[in-house]
Amino acid sequence: MSILTPDDFTAAAKRIAPYVGETPIVAMSPTGLGLKAENLHPIGAFKLRGAFNAILSLTNEERARGVVAHSSGNHAQGVAYAAKVLGVKASVVMPDNGSQMKAEATRSWGAEVVLVPVAQRSSKCQEIAKAHGYAVIEPYDARAILAGTGTIGLEILRQAPHVKYVCVPISGGGLLGGVAAAIGQANPNVKVIGVEPELASDAYQSFKAGRIVALPATETGRTIADGLRVSQVGDIPWEHISRFVHDMVLVSEEEIRDAVRKIAAEAHLVAEPSGAVSVAGALKLKLPPNETVCVVSGGNLDLASYAKILAG
Amino acid sequence: MSILTPDDFTAAAKRIAPYVGETPIVAMSPTGLGLKAENLHPIGAFKLRGAFNAILSLTNEERARGVVAHSSGNHAQGVAYAAKVLGVKASVVMPDNGSQMKAEATRSWGAEVVLVPVAQRSSKCQEIAKAHGYAVIEPYDARAILAGTGTIGLEILRQAPHVKYVCVPISGGGLLGGVAAAIGQANPNVKVIGVEPELASDAYQSFKAGRIVALPATETGRTIADGLRVSQVGDIPWEHISRFVHDMVLVSEEEIRDAVRKIAAEAHLVAEPSGAVSVAGALKLKLPPNETVCVVSGGNLDLASYAKILAG
Repeated sequence: MSILTPDDFTAAAKRIAPYVGETPIVAMSPTGLGLKAENLHPIGAFKLRGAFNAILSLTNEERARGVVAHSSGNHAQGVAYAAKVLGVKASVVMPDNGSQMKAEATRSWGAEVVLVPVAQRSSKCQEIAKAHGYAVIEPYDARAILAGTGTIGLEILRQAPHVKYVCVPISGGGLLGGVAAAIGQANPNVKVIGVEPELASDAYQSFKAGRIVALPATETGRTIADGLRVSQVGDIPWEHISRFVHDMVLVSEEEIRDAVRKIAAEAHLVAEPSGAVSVAGALKLKLPPNETVCVVSGGNLDLASYAKILAG
Repeated sequence: MSILTPDDFTAAAKRIAPYVGETPIVAMSPTGLGLKAENLHPIGAFKLRGAFNAILSLTNEERARGVVAHSSGNHAQGVAYAAKVLGVKASVVMPDNGSQMKAEATRSWGAEVVLVPVAQRSSKCQEIAKAHGYAVIEPYDARAILAGTGTIGLEILRQAPHVKYVCVPISGGGLLGGVAAAIGQANPNVKVIGVEPELASDAYQSFKAGRIVALPATETGRTIADGLRVSQVGDIPWEHISRFVHDMVLVSEEEIRDAVRKIAAEAHLVAEPSGAVSVAGALKLKLPPNETVCVVSGGNLDLASYAKILAG
């Protein structure tokens, strides 16, 4: 399998630039820990980067037919939003037991939402692709997705040239793999660290074992970080993670909640638990705040759940 | 009294640029209403703009002696932070019945905090100034403060060249006066609108009457927007507001709370009630979202109060 090159990342950055605004790095106070605020995108998460890059990498004919994706959360919104902006028909398969808010948001961007039992997500997606000739936009196990997420790494290096550590949440690996490969090839002195919930530690175990370890979904499903419940890293992300990630760290549920609270109080940003694990990791490792940037990957959660976390 | 000129604002922008980062305009989703995210400054509020401009406008001798300010909230942090960064001694007089969080934060920036009964704030401030030869940094009724806050207006015009309406919270008038005068002289087609809580409507009444109307502090003290409880607009802000503000609008307590919730859910930003009134005003007036920018002036509130608002 071939590794994405620096040219792949700069090409993706150029491709998505007309559609995806650069997010700021917000400093927590008073420590100065840097937060790459990917929650400030219109869809409230980084996922539009990969979605735009993937859809823009299709042929004109493919785009004219439409796209289909399956997702329980932010990828659904990313594909729906990018498709709307680009004038492409989109269908998104979502689990019927998932967040209603995320399904609503996906519909609000004009996508057709197909609700199915969670186990049938992938097969239903393939079925729709076949029936309509739609191109499947994978959530993480695809080169175009990693090239898109890697643009976050390029922005960090430009915005924070003094950075030494970058902490990134890990689920299927599309975010971590892209960021690590982009940064690792541009500046190998910067250490990229993956952060994962203790309750969904498949990527951590994979990293330590040197091969992909899968966990049962019943196990990974327990964490509050609902975007990180994927039970095994994708093959393409894995190739990049095993090569470019410096280390991995696990964080507890209480450390994740505490990070959500700190991000609100000290940076005035709304982070979802999955987006806050990077901060939990940086705090756990006691990384030097002024030389560390944490990717806050998203801020999509319903206000009732958020209020409960903030109330402590 | 002379009105601040465009040169005053550009000079202030140049003066504070090395110390004050530009804040982004974050779009609410899906409407696209623009939020000038002044809550993302290190102190979580716009107040550092005026504080830096005022302290940097002192003579070297004045700066060497130190500064003193009185404030119940964000101005205290603004002065403390700017003084720390500039290596200037700072003393801040705060009411002994105010937010402990804000007093702690002010101390965390290295300022000496002097707690007094709320009625003695101003006299204590003068007393300290005399005793130590400190320069008083006024919270809003000063040209240097307005010149500093006006830099927000210049940034908005550059970041959102299509803007037609700018909504701004009004308390003592330092923020609204500066933004309105900066924008009004640079592009008179842009309408600047002041937004005030119904429960603290002195500025609204002043604007409609054409002269400064004062309200009793017991009346203005009722609003949840604790940064907007000032009971009369300052003279210098008033000269600028009466000349450059297009209109004023009042919002209810429930509209303010609703705006705090919408800013969290649709822009993933933590806003304090005082910072969210601008959004409440834009929604109330049904301004066209894509042509409107609301100044979200701050995000400092304790998490328990915030959680209570979010829970609805």
